[in-house]
Amino acid sequence: MKKTPVLPSRSALRPLGLDEVQITGGYWGRRQETNAEATIWHCLHWLEKLGWIDNFEKAGTGAEFERAGREFSDSEIYKLAEAMAWEIGRSGSPELEARFIRLTEQISAALESDGYLSTMFGHPGQRPRYTDLEWGHELYCYGHLLQAAVARLRTHGEDDFVRLARQVADHVCDTFGPGGIERICGHAEIEVGLAEFARATGEQRYLDQAKLFIDRHGKRTLGGDGLEYYQDDAHVHDAEVLRGHAVRALYLSSGALDVAADTGDKELLEAVRRQWDRTLARRTHITGGMGSRYQDEAYGDDFALSPDRAYAESCAGIGGVMTAWRLLLATGELSYGDIIERITWNVLAGAVAPDGKSFFYANPLQQRTFDEVPPSGKAVGHSGAGGHRAPWYDVSCCPTNLARTFASLAAYIATVDDGGLQLHQYMPADIATDLADGPVAVRVETDYPESGTITIRIDRNEAGPWTLSLRVPDWADGAQLTGPDGVRRTVAPGRAEITSDFAAGDTVTLELPVGPRWTRADPRIDSVRGCVAVEQGPLVLCAESVDQPGGADVVDLSVDPGKAPVVQDGTVTVSGHVHKHVDAWPYGSNPDPEEGREAAEVALIPFHLRATRGPATMRVWLPTA
Amino acid sequence: MKKTPVLPSRSALRPLGLDEVQITGGYWGRRQETNAEATIWHCLHWLEKLGWIDNFEKAGTGAEFERAGREFSDSEIYKLAEAMAWEIGRSGSPELEARFIRLTEQISAALESDGYLSTMFGHPGQRPRYTDLEWGHELYCYGHLLQAAVARLRTHGEDDFVRLARQVADHVCDTFGPGGIERICGHAEIEVGLAEFARATGEQRYLDQAKLFIDRHGKRTLGGDGLEYYQDDAHVHDAEVLRGHAVRALYLSSGALDVAADTGDKELLEAVRRQWDRTLARRTHITGGMGSRYQDEAYGDDFALSPDRAYAESCAGIGGVMTAWRLLLATGELSYGDIIERITWNVLAGAVAPDGKSFFYANPLQQRTFDEVPPSGKAVGHSGAGGHRAPWYDVSCCPTNLARTFASLAAYIATVDDGGLQLHQYMPADIATDLADGPVAVRVETDYPESGTITIRIDRNEAGPWTLSLRVPDWADGAQLTGPDGVRRTVAPGRAEITSDFAAGDTVTLELPVGPRWTRADPRIDSVRGCVAVEQGPLVLCAESVDQPGGADVVDLSVDPGKAPVVQDGTVTVSGHVHKHVDAWPYGSNPDPEEGREAAEVALIPFHLRATRGPATMRVWLPTA
Repeated sequence: MKKTPVLPSRSALRPLGLDEVQITGGYWGRRQETNAEATIWHCLHWLEKLGWIDNFEKAGTGAEFERAGREFSDSEIYKLAEAMAWEIGRSGSPELEARFIRLTEQISAALESDGYLSTMFGHPGQRPRYTDLEWGHELYCYGHLLQAAVARLRTHGEDDFVRLARQVADHVCDTFGPGGIERICGHAEIEVGLAEFARATGEQRYLDQAKLFIDRHGKRTLGGDGLEYYQDDAHVHDAEVLRGHAVRALYLSSGALDVAADTGDKELLEAVRRQWDRTLARRTHITGGMGSRYQDEAYGDDFALSPDRAYAESCAGIGGVMTAWRLLLATGELSYGDIIERITWNVLAGAVAPDGKSFFYANPLQQRTFDEVPPSGKAVGHSGAGGHRAPWYDVSCCPTNLARTFASLAAYIATVDDGGLQLHQYMPADIATDLADGPVAVRVETDYPESGTITIRIDRNEAGPWTLSLRVPDWADGAQLTGPDGVRRTVAPGRAEITSDFAAGDTVTLELPVGPRWTRADPRIDSVRGCVAVEQGPLVLCAESVDQPGGADVVDLSVDPGKAPVVQDGTVTVSGHVHKHVDAWPYGSNPDPEEGREAAEVALIPFHLRATRGPATMRVWLPTA
Repeated sequence: MKKTPVLPSRSALRPLGLDEVQITGGYWGRRQETNAEATIWHCLHWLEKLGWIDNFEKAGTGAEFERAGREFSDSEIYKLAEAMAWEIGRSGSPELEARFIRLTEQISAALESDGYLSTMFGHPGQRPRYTDLEWGHELYCYGHLLQAAVARLRTHGEDDFVRLARQVADHVCDTFGPGGIERICGHAEIEVGLAEFARATGEQRYLDQAKLFIDRHGKRTLGGDGLEYYQDDAHVHDAEVLRGHAVRALYLSSGALDVAADTGDKELLEAVRRQWDRTLARRTHITGGMGSRYQDEAYGDDFALSPDRAYAESCAGIGGVMTAWRLLLATGELSYGDIIERITWNVLAGAVAPDGKSFFYANPLQQRTFDEVPPSGKAVGHSGAGGHRAPWYDVSCCPTNLARTFASLAAYIATVDDGGLQLHQYMPADIATDLADGPVAVRVETDYPESGTITIRIDRNEAGPWTLSLRVPDWADGAQLTGPDGVRRTVAPGRAEITSDFAAGDTVTLELPVGPRWTRADPRIDSVRGCVAVEQGPLVLCAESVDQPGGADVVDLSVDPGKAPVVQDGTVTVSGHVHKHVDAWPYGSNPDPEEGREAAEVALIPFHLRATRGPATMRVWLPTA
């Protein structure tokens, strides 16, 4: 069984398992080690400390109990279980394995005889089951349980955790199947969980139930005026763009793509692709962040992409990777890897502190003010708008979500098809898999994106001639590809291919132009008009006040895009000015006089490294004078 | 007793009563008629229909009852009572007077023997009194009751309504005085209500209690993390800027200025003035709208003034007028009239439909999308983001608030001091008052802002020589003043004065340059960088899609500020382009190619007339190409 989170029964490209592809070092290798050694245990500590795990054992007593946490807290335990399962599958950690078995026992305490499992509903003093589908999150929690069970089944095989998940999945089908409660959950997730669990177990009824839930979106079975928030305003087949709560929208899209793949519903695939394409063109920040609105954690209107009020939730980043990866597998178009790379480097990488123990929930592209960092033992409000990562949130969906994603990150590096191997993400990695005609092994060596050179060495080829396909990012004008024959050629953004009967020791080298470059925005994005950004390879850069002349607040900076960015000792600077402004009525014939400007070199850092030296004012989009 | 809403015991300028100054026609004369004939009755209709008035009679039975409306619905009845009282004072309508007396009986039904009055708390099945000061709004409602009682007392004299208010005010002092509940209400308003009621009744204890409430802000007596929202995060004396919920902040500022005036607390005056000045420089939209955030209806960070997500609540406009008017009276600085004019024309005028029966709650400066207009009998969600005025809102604070403001609008036109008369707002008006040395009468004739000519004719002068002071708006470079001697001279923005022993028939003429002009924004306001606006006298203009070539969505427009705006047949147009854009990843080296632009004349209308021909896309800030 492939050790991979997404395994369509039919797809243009086929994913690899974590036993076939491993990250062997570099930035993401370090992040994965930190995830294993720090983040997973940090999350366990908080879940224990807050009593969110205890809820299960208390619920199991049958007595009335004081429940800790919000209505969706069960899902944090499941997401962490998924992270642990992938990490056990990756590293074989016996310590984590023991904890996983204990966690299974703890969760099992709350399982009811008919497969119902929730610490929030149905117990003495609580509301009855399924009486608040809008906000109850019961099915949402199950979805995460099923994704965790997929990880466990694919990395370990059938066990008590998987059996528990089967009971829950059967209960869902019994309860929400035809003739049952013909409604949906206010937070999509059960769809993607059931669909993948169907793949992992071979149980058709789970896929059928996932399809039922997808088809029910848009039937307005949820209450209230805000159906867009839940994506219950329009059928998935009919919608034109992603809208409402961003994480809900992206989880729903992922589930819909899974159903489309396994039922052969090409119209559903095209519908989600259409929504995705429009969302990228009109509702996505340069970082790949999605969700313009703090209010409802929602997508905003087209082109309403204010950097300072960007929400760009970390979990929406994960949902974006989930959706794009399924589109990539379904269509075989390598360009979907561009947005995965963008999100991974510019949303996910920065969402976890370098030590793995604090997190951004929202990832705005501009920080006008910042708060004091609260004491480290304190959870904070979930918008986390204060400009610093927090160890935990009152709504703490992001930490465990990031942990499961980092643990399974290798799954997004490469795919195969009948013709060969495709490389999507560039990091040091070992890949060993079977192509149509035999096994192959390749090693990827690179310090990308510090340099743009990616070397792919063939270690083994018993498959005869095959095609190595490499994603060339859309920004990589002038990329160079050198084949085993030593011939160097320019390759256009998109897909670069080399077909060869590779010999062991052959190398293919891709050189991407990772120098800093000015980037401008579609003029319909009002909030960044008159601004430029600097990107460097896949990295979006930003200016932080701590790096500026005299610690200048970034609100007072402007830059000159007529001069190229300069790299010196690894640091990027651009020429610009520090302005001295006067406070008065801010509208008039000339509120921006020339006097009081001083030339300055504006230093930039990767966006994902922001707020690692204490909170600061920060901006990605830099005004031109 | 002066028939005026604000009457400080000490001030630099003294307000006039509605018996001393009347609007005699023009735009605001028509609006006042519509307010009397349509808006007040419309609000009465909704309050009856929704059962918000019935709540009082039901509460009076002592039995458990099903209460209609939100926790602050009592205040709508009080604000409407205030509107009715001013309107009765202005026009003497016997129909309204009869309804006012009936309303007094209805409200009185719920008054308890100790002066407690709320339909929300303390009755069978309800929570006990004052157990939710954060959200209960009991004192907030009282504040509006007291403002209504001030209107009644000053326009009619002592009656059952005023006696009822006295009982409530006494109850508040008994309950929240020293040794009582030493906390505040989550929504400021009681302060301004008590302070003015103290002035109207001469009761010192009401002023003392108002001062106590002001001083308690910042003592963190309210619960929860979001103390900024309630202005309980910092003392009013210490704060640097208005913050948190905008309406709360402005009502609190008004109450603080009243307390400062009547207790002679100059530091408090200066503190509020400092906060106000910084708020104007950094947190105010060009329309005078305040409140950048839908979330919490709050002020945002400095310079975070996104046009499309501007909240600019109508009630915050009213709070802005309240605060600026108190600053004007306290300091004698005529320039505070600039922001009153700006808010009046660009927030309040447009917040009520021309027929007086539908309202904007939020007043964003850009409308990217719009919704279908719902059936006319339906109240809508209170953000009202759909681009059309609604007849009522679930949180319906604005309609009654606008009604009371329109009914008392004449009070903001003029003031007197020992030296003479000051004119602040320009509209057709009759003014007859007593100066230090005798009575004077003047008539203002103008169709401002259609033209910039304002003629002040002296009808009577038995006061000897005195000074007529005229506010010259900050945008009015090149204004001309002609005295009774026929000499015409240029006057600078600020204050223009003529001192004379005026004879009946003398005229003074002020000519303001009301042609359309380009306006730019402080470059720290990121969200309008690279844009210009067009203003015309006090009016902010906007482009609506219905006026553009081919009905072009305003997102596709750009303008050329190198060419002056043109007025033809009363319509302003500017030269620009309609762009044809292509959807793709919206960030890159050149996402705005030249091809596909077509020259176009962009038609503009006053912002306050937006959405009067059906909803449309709309923008105030126009991109330069």
